[in-house]
Amino acid sequence: MAIRVVIVGAGFAGINCAKRLGNRKGIDVTVVDRRNHHLFQPLLYQVAMAGLSPADIAVPIRTLLGKYRNVRVVQAEVDGLEYDESGQGGTVVAGASRFPFDALLLGAGAQHAYFGHEEWEPFAPGLKNLEQATEIRRRVLSAFERAEVTSDPDERRAALSFVVVGGGPTGVELAGALGEMSRFTLSRDFRSIDPKLTRVILIEAGPRILPSFSVELSSRATADLEKLGVQVWTDRAVTQVSAEGVEVAGERIRASTVLWAAGVQASSTGALVGGQRDRAGRVLVKSDLSIEGHPNVFVAGDQAAFREEERDRWLPGVATVALQQGIFVADTILADQRNRPRVAFRYWDKGQMATIGRRRAVLSSGKLELSGVMAWFAWLLVHIYYLTGFKNRLFVLMQWAYSYLTFARGARLIVQKEWRSYRSDRPAVPSS
Amino acid sequence: MAIRVVIVGAGFAGINCAKRLGNRKGIDVTVVDRRNHHLFQPLLYQVAMAGLSPADIAVPIRTLLGKYRNVRVVQAEVDGLEYDESGQGGTVVAGASRFPFDALLLGAGAQHAYFGHEEWEPFAPGLKNLEQATEIRRRVLSAFERAEVTSDPDERRAALSFVVVGGGPTGVELAGALGEMSRFTLSRDFRSIDPKLTRVILIEAGPRILPSFSVELSSRATADLEKLGVQVWTDRAVTQVSAEGVEVAGERIRASTVLWAAGVQASSTGALVGGQRDRAGRVLVKSDLSIEGHPNVFVAGDQAAFREEERDRWLPGVATVALQQGIFVADTILADQRNRPRVAFRYWDKGQMATIGRRRAVLSSGKLELSGVMAWFAWLLVHIYYLTGFKNRLFVLMQWAYSYLTFARGARLIVQKEWRSYRSDRPAVPSS
Repeated sequence: MAIRVVIVGAGFAGINCAKRLGNRKGIDVTVVDRRNHHLFQPLLYQVAMAGLSPADIAVPIRTLLGKYRNVRVVQAEVDGLEYDESGQGGTVVAGASRFPFDALLLGAGAQHAYFGHEEWEPFAPGLKNLEQATEIRRRVLSAFERAEVTSDPDERRAALSFVVVGGGPTGVELAGALGEMSRFTLSRDFRSIDPKLTRVILIEAGPRILPSFSVELSSRATADLEKLGVQVWTDRAVTQVSAEGVEVAGERIRASTVLWAAGVQASSTGALVGGQRDRAGRVLVKSDLSIEGHPNVFVAGDQAAFREEERDRWLPGVATVALQQGIFVADTILADQRNRPRVAFRYWDKGQMATIGRRRAVLSSGKLELSGVMAWFAWLLVHIYYLTGFKNRLFVLMQWAYSYLTFARGARLIVQKEWRSYRSDRPAVPSS
Repeated sequence: MAIRVVIVGAGFAGINCAKRLGNRKGIDVTVVDRRNHHLFQPLLYQVAMAGLSPADIAVPIRTLLGKYRNVRVVQAEVDGLEYDESGQGGTVVAGASRFPFDALLLGAGAQHAYFGHEEWEPFAPGLKNLEQATEIRRRVLSAFERAEVTSDPDERRAALSFVVVGGGPTGVELAGALGEMSRFTLSRDFRSIDPKLTRVILIEAGPRILPSFSVELSSRATADLEKLGVQVWTDRAVTQVSAEGVEVAGERIRASTVLWAAGVQASSTGALVGGQRDRAGRVLVKSDLSIEGHPNVFVAGDQAAFREEERDRWLPGVATVALQQGIFVADTILADQRNRPRVAFRYWDKGQMATIGRRRAVLSSGKLELSGVMAWFAWLLVHIYYLTGFKNRLFVLMQWAYSYLTFARGARLIVQKEWRSYRSDRPAVPSS
């Protein structure tokens, strides 16, 4: 009988595992995700900053896996897991649906976390999915519109103040894009305000931004951000977030837009497999990515805590780790099928990068370190190369070429959350 | 002193009026819209049917009008109008903001209407803005996902049943796209269901669909829809809409997706100018598009009721009427400025068209009538030509070329309405 593989989560780990197992004899794959699309998360900040449309960085899971006859895609929310008595296999439960498995890959990712201050979220959205990206875009663009209309100087100042909390790659990319947008893209659009007066503050609790990069690149990134008008505040932790702004190290900053890029928490589905978890909710995995006591239950990507002994570190939650782990799990399942011995996962570290505004980046790969325009081009090539699906690659490239040449932002639309026109609690509104 | 022109609504009428007045000496223009984008409404159904992304058919108003130094753009919701004592000029009120005018153009468009059954809206969204388009897309794509997962045959049948209410161009375009999507685009995507079994019903209360076209074209459109598997029910009025489906002429149809394309109601801002209005809320305008007693207050587009005496008809609510009226109002304001006599508005009727699925359409222009592939190509050329802004034109053309060649739908994303991860009323959800 065929080996039933269930994959929970169609992120970089899940999709790449499913592709590797696609059309293999003796393997049946079911991919369960609560969304219908795979998301190219490294470019999500571009959607938030109106540079790209959601469809440019997301592809329906069915489209990605449609050609594999042994792969079934199900849109459902997983809420349970039952092990067989042997402990070898089990059943994934999603509402009324049940998916029995002989091997399971859990790769449901992570979301942003507020370190116990979840009440801050309404005032400081994080950036992990398309809904959050369009919400951030709506807030940022609406702030400029509000500043243009108001005659109250205090309100205008608050509307033109943006705080980004967290100096990792996402925070740096958001702050850089905000700086660039206000200095260049929007500068000709308004009559009453000067978007160049926009204040962008990047707040990092640690001693420097981009702590996973070298001190030199981190300071280079700081300088590049400052050229875009971004103020970089390090060594200061945010102690309060509200509709008025933030409190940071005793100071109070009025800002109508606060963005959160400070922490992540692994998906709560990790609790279902029953293994040991770290403080960020990540499941501790063995060298073959399986969990203690369940050799056929694998966890990968942002949801897994993998110890790399030789480099004495925990692997970071980045796309390349998830991608390589997904393929590794598929290969392990295929090895089991042929009764070959399992091997240990080894991460091929190709390096890391972060982009700053429209044409600067920092990049480190082994001993190579790059910054400025060269790093930006490398960043561009790598991201286009990895964008899943030929069409998207081509379209994103064109969109960028266009944005680059014209300083325009193609997707600068404010779309509301509410779609209904008629509501009992308010009068009919003009559909201007 | 410069003539202060206020334009309420940046649809086809407002944008074209503003462009015509752009950079003219002695004219100051303020464009007020509650959204930040101009929408190419004739292609909105393509966004709803996942063929195009919102950004493909919408452009920020600031981008469209940025090059005119005498045009100011304000995002605000108009809620009042005060006339001067002379009755010549006045002030538009939008919250705390006030915009005095010497001449006013009201072009705030229309929304869909439920003929006194506004309680049907949650079960049967209409299609007038981007939010509604993405909501319809979410419902349509989610229905297929639900059908794939469920093991209950009744639920599956309901999920694969789509009802479109209203046989005008929008209803025909929605039904045709649903038929095509289920027959072609989705047919290879699912394992448990056969999308070809999808039931699409188009319900029209009158004796035939597309009543503004000739009987022959209307019957040709019916035949084309039937080839795509759409059932066309005429002479039947919908008497009830609920979460279960619709009741129509004594019959009860179970359908989890109902779309509304049956009626329009002009924007309620029409009441502010104080003129006479018809049953659909449209303001009755004189031959120069001004209203009785206020020669400098103009109403145009879907919001105006204009009587074309020679052809003995009221002008229809289509983009070309709005576009020509917007330009006409600008020319009238310029004529007034130079003390030249006003003329009467004459509509240059270029004809009408509706598309059916991926490569059929009906078109009538004067005595010319076309249907099938030729009409579809004509439709394509006209729509691409009129799409505002060079970039969009190019992108939409490419997107279509790609969809046409591959039968794929590029924007097939289900995006939720809710962006928050942490909510007090439910447990944290996996961000798979």
